[in-house]
Amino acid sequence: MSVLHISLSFQTEGRSQMIDITDEIQDALEKNHITEGIANIFVVGSTASISTIENDENLYQDMQEVLEKVIPMEKNWKHHQTWGDENGGSHLRATLFGPGICVPVTKGKLKLGTWQKVVLMDFDTTPRNREIIVTCFS
Amino acid sequence: MSVLHISLSFQTEGRSQMIDITDEIQDALEKNHITEGIANIFVVGSTASISTIENDENLYQDMQEVLEKVIPMEKNWKHHQTWGDENGGSHLRATLFGPGICVPVTKGKLKLGTWQKVVLMDFDTTPRNREIIVTCFS
Amino acid sequence: MSVLHISLSFQTEGRSQMIDITDEIQDALEKNHITEGIANIFVVGSTASISTIENDENLYQDMQEVLEKVIPMEKNWKHHQTWGDENGGSHLRATLFGPGICVPVTKGKLKLGTWQKVVLMDFDTTPRNREIIVTCFS
Repeated sequence: MSVLHISLSFQTEGRSQMIDITDEIQDALEKNHITEGIANIFVVGSTASISTIENDENLYQDMQEVLEKVIPMEKNWKHHQTWGDENGGSHLRATLFGPGICVPVTKGKLKLGTWQKVVLMDFDTTPRNREIIVTCFS
Repeated sequence: MSVLHISLSFQTEGRSQMIDITDEIQDALEKNHITEGIANIFVVGSTASISTIENDENLYQDMQEVLEKVIPMEKNWKHHQTWGDENGGSHLRATLFGPGICVPVTKGKLKLGTWQKVVLMDFDTTPRNREIIVTCFS
Repeated sequence: MSVLHISLSFQTEGRSQMIDITDEIQDALEKNHITEGIANIFVVGSTASISTIENDENLYQDMQEVLEKVIPMEKNWKHHQTWGDENGGSHLRATLFGPGICVPVTKGKLKLGTWQKVVLMDFDTTPRNREIIVTCFS
């Protein structure tokens, strides 16, 4: 049994863009011959999150509506007084969704449902280059 | 040290039903002689989630009220245009709560608080048979 | 490869207090010579959560506002009929944020972003002594 960290990077547009990163993770598992175990998928940084969702542009738009209702971006959050960077809503969204998830790996595949994809959500206000750490135990 | 995947299945009623699955997971750990390590509990599919909660029917009803306020089911979500399956709210709820959690295992027991139980939340609109993967490292 | 459980305790004020526990976890990793692997950080109990956030008092206040909007504490939750302990909102918040997260450990350090800190959120209505289990695979 061994542990392996795989670092992947993704260019995002920010603004709560949702990116299906399932294929990139699956490719990394195959390249590293991970067959049975678990993959922890973690995004480095305090304004982005990982979860699972169906890859559907309509659903992504629905999520924007939920996010905007629960944690609006344009609100004058107190955090803006700290740095003047206007991304209080980005931080709050990221804390709510959390920084990562674990997905079982069986027979070399992420054990996801048919429509269940791993999604990177970048809540920051500007484009970012995001580092994802995939930690595999197998 | 070794990894073990245990597959459990649960029949649900959907409609955001919450089911305490702690005993089934604990039984599976004991049957497989897992004593020290961690259990990742993951639900396969994009309209269900795992978290922890006190097993109290009143609290389950409170959660329905929160869910309905934050992500109402009857809303005409854009996702409904994609498949016509009316479960946009189910997907959004599942992404918010996430697909799984890790729970420490010590002395053969899930290391939970007295009232803290592992809960399967099935947000889909109809009854489903759900597969839970319990991945144990010990 | 081995597994290690580290138990840490924190005195909180409850009332959704947010406490940056990054340094205590990092110290525990160093004391136990964990260099490459993962740390699962799990709070025992059904009215507290773990996530990541920037350590900023203004942002913490913003989070209180979001929490109060989504899951108000003063509401007469049905759960209050069960035990009369007035902490229905505490339970609901904890289930929403979840009991724990996994963070990669590389070169002996939690692999967090510059501003990304591990936070204990204690949603209960009174001060509590909280047990955190840090389970390390390395």
